[in-house]
Amino acid sequence: MKPIEECVVGIVGLGLMGGAIAMALRNCGALTKNSNTAIGSGNSITACGAASGAASSGAGGGRILACDIDGETLAAALTENVIDEGLPSPENMLGRCDLVFLCLNPSTLLRFMDTWMAHFKPGALITDIAGIKGKIVDAVERVLRPDLDFIPGHPMAGAEKGSFGSAKNVSFHGKNYILTPLKRNRPENLDYLKALIYRMGFGRIMETTAAEHDRKIAFTSQLCHVIAAALIDCESDTAITRFGGGSFEDLTRIAMLNAPMWTELFLENRRELLSRIEQFEKSLDKLKNYITNGDEAALQENLRQVRKRRAAMNG
Amino acid sequence: MKPIEECVVGIVGLGLMGGAIAMALRNCGALTKNSNTAIGSGNSITACGAASGAASSGAGGGRILACDIDGETLAAALTENVIDEGLPSPENMLGRCDLVFLCLNPSTLLRFMDTWMAHFKPGALITDIAGIKGKIVDAVERVLRPDLDFIPGHPMAGAEKGSFGSAKNVSFHGKNYILTPLKRNRPENLDYLKALIYRMGFGRIMETTAAEHDRKIAFTSQLCHVIAAALIDCESDTAITRFGGGSFEDLTRIAMLNAPMWTELFLENRRELLSRIEQFEKSLDKLKNYITNGDEAALQENLRQVRKRRAAMNG
Repeated sequence: MKPIEECVVGIVGLGLMGGAIAMALRNCGALTKNSNTAIGSGNSITACGAASGAASSGAGGGRILACDIDGETLAAALTENVIDEGLPSPENMLGRCDLVFLCLNPSTLLRFMDTWMAHFKPGALITDIAGIKGKIVDAVERVLRPDLDFIPGHPMAGAEKGSFGSAKNVSFHGKNYILTPLKRNRPENLDYLKALIYRMGFGRIMETTAAEHDRKIAFTSQLCHVIAAALIDCESDTAITRFGGGSFEDLTRIAMLNAPMWTELFLENRRELLSRIEQFEKSLDKLKNYITNGDEAALQENLRQVRKRRAAMNG
Repeated sequence: MKPIEECVVGIVGLGLMGGAIAMALRNCGALTKNSNTAIGSGNSITACGAASGAASSGAGGGRILACDIDGETLAAALTENVIDEGLPSPENMLGRCDLVFLCLNPSTLLRFMDTWMAHFKPGALITDIAGIKGKIVDAVERVLRPDLDFIPGHPMAGAEKGSFGSAKNVSFHGKNYILTPLKRNRPENLDYLKALIYRMGFGRIMETTAAEHDRKIAFTSQLCHVIAAALIDCESDTAITRFGGGSFEDLTRIAMLNAPMWTELFLENRRELLSRIEQFEKSLDKLKNYITNGDEAALQENLRQVRKRRAAMNG
């Protein structure tokens, strides 16, 4: 791979995370702003081609291209200097990109790989950001062209509201980034991506298998979202927050969820998530029984152990 | 009541909240620092008397006294200029205080009122901060001297770690403060306390009945703490946070709970809390069933409604 400063990076899907990644690449100095920008209109490649031709005017020649079905998002991203070029379709973008971030919901990502595999630039490095990994890895193993490299990833960051408009609210600083590398990944590409992830501001990279990712994420992310949703579901009085002291607000901030995406994540990781929900229900039942029976000693001891374990989790 | 600047305010129990209230009274300019301070040692009132004699040297003559069984806490509070005088027992303090904040766990508070009722200064205004109100109000109605006024309260603020040492981490800014006034409360005292609460930085005062307080708090506070505890209880791997993206951390920050106090709060408000746990379990079960059955449409619709309701709760 060329130094990132000389790479053409493609972002497929300029939503919350695609936008945040583009901004991080820009802000960390990896890919400075080029002087000429353009939106590829319709199927015309002229505008894109013209913009592409101007690439060498950038600091290292590197550029950020993005494709998205929403023209307004592309226009906003160009106006805000987040991208150098916006295209309505990947057709005229993929063949030019050395590095591609696929920032799509799992189902769209799976369809995307089936449809566009032939269009990637020979030797390109590809990565994704999907919140489930087992199914993605299976598909990649099945459809990936031999000359391409695909390193599955999951940046553990987000914001309450989706879409490009909220991308600037996403902080990568100190956050976790999970990679589930494939056996076939080239070690130099893995090192390359890891260096770039740290450069974008992430604090820790966890390398694990797709199965382990899905097991852990079912707990740290999906179960938490299910709980937050259930908490809101069980109280219809929207003025209840007048009696809040911060706990309820903290527990339900993530209840502002993107319904289609989280439905996909919950259902695609169904087995692991249901197992986690059941574990949680058992612990909840235990506490409920202590309270029902007025078992002060057992309740205190349980809360003491919880406090101790939570403190250890900070370390 | 005298202007707060001329009042002797007593804090009974200089823990997390007692300390935070003393600091807020100091920082809002209501009770500036006096030049002479002292800890009353043992049963001697000489040291306290000497300090008390110097009260008039303060800006408005007002002072902050505190009693706590922990001498080191009192010494620290004096060193940090949070209080003007620290006493190991309420014996030589209560008779001097125009306004008293009882900052004790519910059970200690109930015992305190039985033991020390005779010692309050005639006409004093008293308030508490206990997280349950029904039982406190019952006790107050039963034991309060006719010349005293007691306005039950619950400041909705806190910090992960208890004790005076963490009091500076408690922010009152913009927070809710719930009052459950008694019929016998003097309107002028209620106005007085409310003005002081706003001056300390709180953003909203909710006036309600003790029963309504306990019903709402069972949801916004106690249920959230039970859920956080259950979430920690069901995962023994303390390295799980390496796979965290903030959701798990947000949901379990309050799992760092003070075990004796929360045990009391859970058990004293048992009926309301159990009802809330059951409501939550029903909502959780509903989501679990959608996931089990792969009911994409119902799951999406539920998450969409949740998002809408959570957004309305912000307003």
